[in-house]
This record gives sequence, structure tokens and C-alpha cells, in this order.
Amino acid sequence: MDIFMAPGSVAIIGASRKTDKGSFNLIENMRSFGFQGKIYPVNPLAREIMGLKTFRSVSEIKEPVDLAVISTPREQVPDMAEECAASGIKGAIVVPQGFADADDEGKALQDRLTSISRQRGIRILGPNTLGTVNAFSGFTSSFMPLKREKVPVGIICQSGIFFVGAPMFTGMMGKGIDVANGCDLDFADALEYFEGDDQIQVIFAHIEGMNRGRRFLEVAGRVTPKKPVIALKCGRTERGARAALSHSGSLVGKHEVFEAAFRQAGVVPAADPEEVLDYTRAFLNLRPMSGNRVGIVTFSGAGGIILIDALQEYGLETAQLSSRTTGMIKELSPAWMPIGNPMDIWPALMKHGIEHVYRTALRGMLEDPGVDGVICIAIAPELPGQEHLDAREVIRGAASDFPEKPVVAFLYGHHQDAASKVLEKGGHVVSVPTLPRAARTLAMLHERGRFLREKACA
Amino acid sequence: MDIFMAPGSVAIIGASRKTDKGSFNLIENMRSFGFQGKIYPVNPLAREIMGLKTFRSVSEIKEPVDLAVISTPREQVPDMAEECAASGIKGAIVVPQGFADADDEGKALQDRLTSISRQRGIRILGPNTLGTVNAFSGFTSSFMPLKREKVPVGIICQSGIFFVGAPMFTGMMGKGIDVANGCDLDFADALEYFEGDDQIQVIFAHIEGMNRGRRFLEVAGRVTPKKPVIALKCGRTERGARAALSHSGSLVGKHEVFEAAFRQAGVVPAADPEEVLDYTRAFLNLRPMSGNRVGIVTFSGAGGIILIDALQEYGLETAQLSSRTTGMIKELSPAWMPIGNPMDIWPALMKHGIEHVYRTALRGMLEDPGVDGVICIAIAPELPGQEHLDAREVIRGAASDFPEKPVVAFLYGHHQDAASKVLEKGGHVVSVPTLPRAARTLAMLHERGRFLREKACA
Repeated sequence: MDIFMAPGSVAIIGASRKTDKGSFNLIENMRSFGFQGKIYPVNPLAREIMGLKTFRSVSEIKEPVDLAVISTPREQVPDMAEECAASGIKGAIVVPQGFADADDEGKALQDRLTSISRQRGIRILGPNTLGTVNAFSGFTSSFMPLKREKVPVGIICQSGIFFVGAPMFTGMMGKGIDVANGCDLDFADALEYFEGDDQIQVIFAHIEGMNRGRRFLEVAGRVTPKKPVIALKCGRTERGARAALSHSGSLVGKHEVFEAAFRQAGVVPAADPEEVLDYTRAFLNLRPMSGNRVGIVTFSGAGGIILIDALQEYGLETAQLSSRTTGMIKELSPAWMPIGNPMDIWPALMKHGIEHVYRTALRGMLEDPGVDGVICIAIAPELPGQEHLDAREVIRGAASDFPEKPVVAFLYGHHQDAASKVLEKGGHVVSVPTLPRAARTLAMLHERGRFLREKACA
Repeated sequence: MDIFMAPGSVAIIGASRKTDKGSFNLIENMRSFGFQGKIYPVNPLAREIMGLKTFRSVSEIKEPVDLAVISTPREQVPDMAEECAASGIKGAIVVPQGFADADDEGKALQDRLTSISRQRGIRILGPNTLGTVNAFSGFTSSFMPLKREKVPVGIICQSGIFFVGAPMFTGMMGKGIDVANGCDLDFADALEYFEGDDQIQVIFAHIEGMNRGRRFLEVAGRVTPKKPVIALKCGRTERGARAALSHSGSLVGKHEVFEAAFRQAGVVPAADPEEVLDYTRAFLNLRPMSGNRVGIVTFSGAGGIILIDALQEYGLETAQLSSRTTGMIKELSPAWMPIGNPMDIWPALMKHGIEHVYRTALRGMLEDPGVDGVICIAIAPELPGQEHLDAREVIRGAASDFPEKPVVAFLYGHHQDAASKVLEKGGHVVSVPTLPRAARTLAMLHERGRFLREKACA
């Protein structure tokens, strides 16, 4: 879909003369994000905006225009879309609110946009949208300032909160498409675009409701064997569904139906934003798990028990370690120390030092044919006197030598974030904030592995 | 219980001569934590440790000793405990592992400790414990370096992971008691100690299993109307329970029984570590909710819908706002904008600025008799160009003027943590990482309110 590509030239219809703080000036924002293409402001009341010659209407622009961004009051939007089509513009992003998300008049205006799109062949994204963001090309139609991150994560959503708030959901965003009210282009179109986009490896979809669910599932069924798609379905509850109807003006559907259909199509459903975050990071850095047997290396018996609970709750097995694997740590531990899985290495490391003991335990597990993935518990060694409990180098090294078995870590102590970033360098390990989230992440990677194996055999 | 108090003088039995990096030297650690009391190292092989005269045995110490910390090999521990009792020492912390957490011999050694305690009147904490931490007095028996934070949070646990990893659970720790294997002192004793401790306002208990559950519940029933007690029950699943048995050597019991009994006693059960964190912070800063009706101020319709789902899932109501409350924002919004709860103030604030609009909306809700608590959605205004979307000052001001209605915030954007710290200054608002956690926190404060009202009427 051309409209999703990085445009070379953009007309900004309803460009604002106000700039600087609190103005939400789109042109200013496009420039500071790094857009290098041509910008044609359209505003009949201005002669010049931010050093650019303005046009009274799009028809006055004599050069070719790839994309129009329409930001006028809602009443004028359909005429503007008509004019874009008449001027040969193939795509328009309609930013304003006040359509199917508002009142009956807004619904009628949106219906007109749909007809214009159908009849004139102009593709429309929106209304009620921040449009698209492309950190690779530097294009954004968002009037909200965003950080430019060239990362292979594509977001499809129905609200700007996922652009500005990407750190709270996927953690990062390389490209974004806000389908919003979806008067023309919708989830399936956006997903199809990311399907063919080599810069995008992981796709996240925030979905309140969709009108062409069947087509979305068809596209998803084609995409998911190649690229993971995570979906956060909102409007799950009765009250939430009612609210979604008025927010994006789309029908919501029964949550159970969605979830079953998603799973069938290989889409990974997320129940809350933290799942989105953990799963995105896992997909970017770890391979799917080839079985459900998890090994645990721990400093702490209590941490191991929290994990055993979580593994059982998420349908994973605590791996039966081979006697070779346990034997190596038994040798390093006091005779009375029971060694199993979770493997508590504390007494051993007090005697033999962390490097030797953690490496022996973790490599032993990764070599053990009875283990499909490992959770590492270790200290975030940021306090003075904890440096000698730093297992991060060992964990990272082992994980990078055994990429076929995913390793998820939980670091505890002050400055978990900073300590985790060091551990994650190189992309061999994912470090999560809590132990249950470590188990849940591996459970998802196990599901993903099962899905891919089924697809490979089908 | 004297053993939990800050001791003036401590004998360290089995004091190590090794110091510095990786030595886990307790005396070194006590000093760097800030302990000002007297330390008597006991080690028959040394003359002097860290500038302190050593003793061949506790009986050689002629001054009064408040507390002994025993760190010898396990076989020697019972004799050392006997000797302490003979020397008039009233309390001992037994650090080493290898007791009921290990093998049959360990179990027998632990039974001997229990008998010594009963017969000789010496109270014992442990074995297999980091002992106690008291940031107020500067005492710690932990050989692991810890941060000293004078905060009113007391932790009772069965593992050192909750001391070192306090930031991952309660977020902070002012005092800690690791009851560990609990050969003598147990949860009820620790809870009773915190009951009478004015420096502690919120209590967290990590529980794998306990032998005197009835007494714990009795004490809890007395404490919870005065101070909130949060419990993380581990070993919930069948496999987890088996593991807990071997970790701390205690019986675990059916999870459902625990949970029902906890609730009856007013203990707040937490299902995962993030609940512990959110609830601790909520108890420290917010009052209980007097009803279940929640108002939502939001920049984003989609964020509102995520919350509506979460409120319904956690048993709360989306408040019916008075026409006065909605009217004030309707006046500031375009005519087509539906204004209700969640209250989407985006169009209004684009026109009238964030300060005026956010203040009007939030104060309106806090004044509305149909609202018992509020969730604020706002941007974490840390990117250039977002400064004019900074609602933090307004939120903090309104929340501090209406302390009887708890306000929880969700800030989205890069640097959520830093932005939240600013918002939380003064302790009027709690800012959480995700929207579902905001709803869950208010649901807990609603439960707490209901419990306290029931107690007040009983």
C-alpha cells in the first residue's frame, strides 16, 4: 500500500501557522523527526509557514504529491479528500477526531470519506489518527513528538497512545500505522504492508474492533509463520466493548471468538501491556523453544519456588536434569546439599566463586538434552561489595553459545534496569522484571515453537 | 522479642578472617551498613579480625552480649547455641544452610536447635537465614551488602532474596526479618514485633509454609486493622509446595485454605511480585477507597478502554459522573465531543492548554460525590516538545487537596520512571507502569476500605 511507504513529497492540508511550544505543529514535528522529503503546506490564510511557500489548495501544487495529510476542521475533510483525488493524490491521512468516534454528523462525514475512497480510488488512513511513522525513512505524520528508533518493530493500532507510549507496550517502535476509525484502510492492509517489509521483524497490533475480521485473519495466517504477530485485544469486557464502539466507531465482537480465531491464525494474544513488552523483546532476541522443559539456575531457593509455581501455572515442565548435569554441581557443593532443578548454586559459589560455578551450572543445563530453555536467577550487582556476584558475563557467553535454547534472566537488587541492559548487550538473553514474567515468556516461546513445527509439518 | 531489636553488642561466632571482595565477611558488611554497637568476633584460630580482638569462645567474652550470630559449619551450631545460652545470651541468629533444608542429618541438627531453644530459653532465628536488618539503627546480620533505607516497610521472609531483592518486591525495606527454617522464632513472632514497632507502617510477608498457622492468623487479625499486611504465598502449586518443603523444611498447606484464612484475618494476598510492589507503595501513600466508583481522566480513548476492561475485571465500577463534572469539560470541548467517564480531554486541551483543562477535569472528579478514586492518564513529558503536555504539577496539587480519594497515575512515554518520580514527590499520588496495574491497585484499596469499615462497625 503506497500510503504506508515513506513518501517523497507530502501536502499538509490545514497546516498551522502556530509553531513552537504547545502548538502541535506537524511540519515542525516532521522536520525534527528527520523528514527529508518535500513538504507543501496548504492554508488559504497564510503565505509562508516555517520558510515554506504555502498553497491555497492542493490543486495549486504543480509538482507531484505522494501523500496528503488532512488536518482541517472535520466539516471540510470530505471536500479536501475529493480535491486530493482530483489532483491525482493517491493517499490521504485524515488526522482530526469528530467522526464515527463522535456524533451522528461525524458518522455521516466518515461515511462520505468511505464513499470518496471507493469512488475516486484514493486510499484513506483514519480519520482520528496520528497516521504513520517510519523511523527508517524519517517520515512521520504525527503531530506529537516521537523518538526516532530504527528498530524492526512494527505497530498497528487504533490510538496515538501506542506511538507516544510505545515504551510502555512494545518497548520500541520502528514503524507505526494508526488505523484509528478505519474508514478505508484497516488492520489487514497494515498487516499486509508489514508482511512485505524487510525492515520489520515483529508486529504488534492493538485492536479494539475491526470490520473485516475475516480478511485480517487470512492475512495473519499468511504472515505469522514468517513473522510473529502479537495482539492486544481491548474492549474485552462488556463495558469495554461498549466504550470501544464509541471510541473508534467499530464493532468489537466477542472476545472469546477473537482469541480463538487469533490463535488459529498463529497470532499471539496478549492479555496485558506487560505481555506485549516481554513478548516483543523475546521475539526480537530469542528463538522459539523446542519443548516445554525448563532448567533453572538460582542463587535462591525461594526464587526457585516462585518459578516452579509459575512454570506449572503457565503449563511448562521443570526439567528433569541428567545425572551428569547435577553431578557437576554436586561435586562443588557440600555433601548435604540437595542438587536438582531448580539448581541452587549458592553454597557452591560461596566456596568456588561465581564464575566457575555459574558457568558450570548454566552450560551443563544448556548441554543437557532434557532441557529446552533456561531461566537464570542472579543478583543485579550494582551495590559495592556485590561485584563478585556478577554472573552477567557468564550468562551472556553461555546463551550466545547455545542460541537454540532460549535464556531468560531475572536480576534482583537495586538498579535492575541498568544491570539488565548490560546483560542484554548482544541480544542473547532477555532480562525481565519478575520471575513469573520469565516463566510466562518461555511459555509463549514454547507455544510459538509448537505453532511453527505444526506449520512446517502441514 | 529482644532478638529483633537493634542489639547494642553482638558476638559473631565463626567470624571469618577473609575480608574484602567476595569474602562475604559479616563484620565488614555490618560496619559498612553503619552498625555502631560492639562487635565480638569469636574464632579460635584468629587473634584479631578487622582490628577487633577475637575470642576463642563466647564464654570468654566478659562483657554483656545482646545477640549472637552463628556462622560455623552446621555440625558445630548446636554446641555453639548451648554455649551462648550458658553465657547468658538471650538470642542467636543461625546463618548456615544444611538443616531441615538439606538432609536427614540436617533435620536432626535442627531438631536439636529447637530443643536447646525450648530448654535453655535462648530464642533462635533460623537456621538458613540472613537474620535481621534494621536500617534505622544500622544493624544487619546479613553477609550480603544491602542499601540502608530508613523507610517504614517491614519485610518478613523465608529467603535472603527478599533482602537483596527488596526493590523487586516491596521496592524498599526499612527492617527485615528472615525467619527461614523457623526452628524457633517464626512468622507470628516477627509480625508481633512489627505490630509494636512505630517505625514500621506496612508489613510484607513472604510465606512458603508455616508450622503455627493458627497463631499467625491470630496475630495478623490483631495487626491488620492497624497496619496493612501483604502476603506473597509461594508453593501455591503442587510442584511448588513439594519444593517449598525441601527448601525451608516447612509444611506448606493448601493454597486455597491459606488464601481464605488470610483474607479473613485482613491480610492482603498478592498473587505475584508486582502486586507486592504496587500495594506497598499504595499503602504508604494513599488512603483506602470508600467505595468502588472510579473516575478516569485521559488523553487517550484507547487508554480509557484498557482501563474499563481492567476495572470490570477487578470488580470496580466506572463512576457515573455528575452533569456538573461533565459539563465543565463539555464547555471546553468541541460540540461533537462525547464527554463521559473515561473523560477524554484531548480536544479540550489542544484548544485550552493542559493546565486549565486537566485541573478542571481532575478537580471536578475529586469533588464529584459519585467518585471514590481517580486514575489519571497523562504523558511522561520527557521528550523535547512534550513539555507543554506536563500534567504532573496539576495532578499532584489536586491529589494533595483531596487525600480521602486515592489518585493513581499512568504516565506513558520514554522515561516513565523518571517522570513518575517527579509526580510522586510529596507522596500524594502513586504512579504505576501499566493501566491494568492502576485498576488493580485501586481494587485493593477498595478491599482495604471495606475491611476497615467492617472492623469499625464490628
